[in-house]
Amino acid sequence: MNRFRELHAVSLVLLAFLCGTAAAEPLDSWNDGPAKKAIIEFVKQTTERASPQFVPQAERIAAFDQDGTLWVEKPMYAQVMYCLDRVPAVVKAKPELADVEPFKTVMTGDREAIAKLPEADLIKILVATLTGMSVQDFRADVAKWLAQARDPRWKRPYTELTYKPMQDLMNYLRDNGYRTYIVTGGGQDFVRVYAEQTYGIPPEQVVGTMGGTTFGYDASGKPFLTKDPKLLLNNDNAGKPEGIHLMIGRVPQVAVGNSGGDRQMLEYTKAGDGARLAMLLLHDDAKREYAYGPAQGLPASKVGTFTQALYDEATKNGWIVISMQKDWKRVFAFE
Amino acid sequence: MNRFRELHAVSLVLLAFLCGTAAAEPLDSWNDGPAKKAIIEFVKQTTERASPQFVPQAERIAAFDQDGTLWVEKPMYAQVMYCLDRVPAVVKAKPELADVEPFKTVMTGDREAIAKLPEADLIKILVATLTGMSVQDFRADVAKWLAQARDPRWKRPYTELTYKPMQDLMNYLRDNGYRTYIVTGGGQDFVRVYAEQTYGIPPEQVVGTMGGTTFGYDASGKPFLTKDPKLLLNNDNAGKPEGIHLMIGRVPQVAVGNSGGDRQMLEYTKAGDGARLAMLLLHDDAKREYAYGPAQGLPASKVGTFTQALYDEATKNGWIVISMQKDWKRVFAFE
Repeated sequence: MNRFRELHAVSLVLLAFLCGTAAAEPLDSWNDGPAKKAIIEFVKQTTERASPQFVPQAERIAAFDQDGTLWVEKPMYAQVMYCLDRVPAVVKAKPELADVEPFKTVMTGDREAIAKLPEADLIKILVATLTGMSVQDFRADVAKWLAQARDPRWKRPYTELTYKPMQDLMNYLRDNGYRTYIVTGGGQDFVRVYAEQTYGIPPEQVVGTMGGTTFGYDASGKPFLTKDPKLLLNNDNAGKPEGIHLMIGRVPQVAVGNSGGDRQMLEYTKAGDGARLAMLLLHDDAKREYAYGPAQGLPASKVGTFTQALYDEATKNGWIVISMQKDWKRVFAFE
Repeated sequence: MNRFRELHAVSLVLLAFLCGTAAAEPLDSWNDGPAKKAIIEFVKQTTERASPQFVPQAERIAAFDQDGTLWVEKPMYAQVMYCLDRVPAVVKAKPELADVEPFKTVMTGDREAIAKLPEADLIKILVATLTGMSVQDFRADVAKWLAQARDPRWKRPYTELTYKPMQDLMNYLRDNGYRTYIVTGGGQDFVRVYAEQTYGIPPEQVVGTMGGTTFGYDASGKPFLTKDPKLLLNNDNAGKPEGIHLMIGRVPQVAVGNSGGDRQMLEYTKAGDGARLAMLLLHDDAKREYAYGPAQGLPASKVGTFTQALYDEATKNGWIVISMQKDWKRVFAFE
């Protein structure tokens, strides 16, 4: 009998090990502190039936910015890297572009010169590399690129550079009946290619910068969609609440961002009735990731959209500021 | 003991009665026939694990046109009735419009003259009555109108004029893991006001004609969205697959429509891999509803977008044509 009990105890331990994810403390990768406490408190308030701030499950929407909130955005947005990497194929298809700016500069491969291209030139590159093909071809090309592209610092696929604590936060919210949305300034079709596998977020829950498509038929009469250079909605800044209304039609209960581009989404979320959670991720961890938020000793010209004013607004409006350095036990899953 | 058995039998009958909805045959309001058979066969094919055409639950999307597919669209779209009914309030707010066409004609209340207004005038009315207010005020105004407006024939709220067999079909699909979407030429924000209560379809699953909004702040600094006259996507004809891609990012497994405005959506759906169900509702029931499909003895000029060519395409492409007269036991829930 004792042997049996021993065996039983061992199998229980094994079971606990195998079911580790389910049995684990929620937000395991977060240090105990005000951010973690605020999240857990908010989830309790909105999901316990007896709570005066209970939110029905259908209305539980959490909106996450992507670049700099769910994954690394430095030294350059992954999507911009994709567009630059795609320029040679575009020039090959249209050789007349080889001597035209900004394609000429991109073809030199001179990173410093490329980084200095004005915004109007960057838009020309985005239009040339993100439109004109079928939705299906675009998807296949992005998937192919993602499989081979590597981040310059960690030498890993971009999709491995997601923040483990944010993945844990999304899982925790989903376990509590929330639907998680990405609300990004990045291209909606671009992010959809990997969002399901990388974040567990299906295509219909990706709200991004939206381009038009045109319906047509191929030579065999089969219908397909071509990606247009027509911009429907620039899903950044004021465009984020506009995109949320367009795609979801509800005000989220939770919004998480990291930059000035997320300001209006955070304001819009926090202005809703009842309990709302607005969070701002502060990049203050040069060692494990990057430090480029305010109060990092950076000159004002380098701070960009990560201004002190944004953090002052956070304090004033009750947004939770997440310090990457203090609040996160680990940054990446591979660490 | 016999008494006990009797009692037991009675309580079983009672239980079956009380649980009527769950125990009922699926598609109760449909006659046995090729349409019902095709639906049940399709659901089996796509939901039984062993089926070679099994579709994972996350990919089970069913797209329904609204006007003429889910509810009555004659003598005029409900949304057009709303816009016409709203004109007096618009003219009251801007008295200078009283002498300007098409507002002048609408203010006379002469239904025949109103019906003859050219499309450009109709668009002026739509813009004047559907834009310029906050999203919240618009929602409240539509809800108020819906509560008091009555259809001219049945003298009932428009939201009661939904087709019972289509409600049953949506429930049957949902019971089998499908998410049901409305994909309508009607205004997205308009349909969202009542879609949840009327069809069980939440706002994020309404794909309609999309207007822009503008983010701003009220006098107290609270953010809100104003409805713009800017058209983002006319969600009709080729716009339907474009809208589906924008809002869902997947090709539906099921599409149901009734007019030429649904043609491209049906083609797009049917062109997907594996089992796909495309259905076209034929209005051939003048007694219980209306008869305005082809082969109703109508002159070509009256057939509009319900052409014979559309039905020829249905036959050629394996779309299922639903005859309202033959396939539906009843049309409305209130019958």
